[in-house]
Amino acid sequence: MEFNFSEVFGLIAAVCTTIAFVPQVWQIWKTKKVDDISLTMYLIFFTGVVFWLIYGILIKSLSVTLANTVTLVLVSIILGMKIRYRDK
Amino acid sequence: MEFNFSEVFGLIAAVCTTIAFVPQVWQIWKTKKVDDISLTMYLIFFTGVVFWLIYGILIKSLSVTLANTVTLVLVSIILGMKIRYRDK
Repeated sequence: MEFNFSEVFGLIAAVCTTIAFVPQVWQIWKTKKVDDISLTMYLIFFTGVVFWLIYGILIKSLSVTLANTVTLVLVSIILGMKIRYRDK
Repeated sequence: MEFNFSEVFGLIAAVCTTIAFVPQVWQIWKTKKVDDISLTMYLIFFTGVVFWLIYGILIKSLSVTLANTVTLVLVSIILGMKIRYRDK
């Protein structure tokens, strides 16, 4: 893995699309409300993040690999809470 | 841009994290309900997708560039509907 100028954009992108899920985690945590959130969206997104992680490792992209590791954790939390609270 | 084995994983990832937003768009379109969706999440995510797009072009990654172009459109629709329906 090498570091160059384009990685700056990748890292800003990675930070944004990763921390973006934090306010959603926080909102569900507070309200326990998940009705308007699509379960199908998070199931497909979770699958996609797993593939991004494999892709990031294969192309030796630091941004893609790091971002998707953290995103996987956050998306798993949202998915877990969606399944847990959806009948309430 | 070159095509190799790792791009297969990238393309599967790209397809998943892009089409994932379609069921969310559809659900909001049907219900007009957006209360449980975090506006902050989509504002930060939108910013991130713009940076992923720039990154994809810079590193000449077909998967990253294509995926984020479509994701930008879908996330913009969700963001637009969130802002439009949030007071209803």
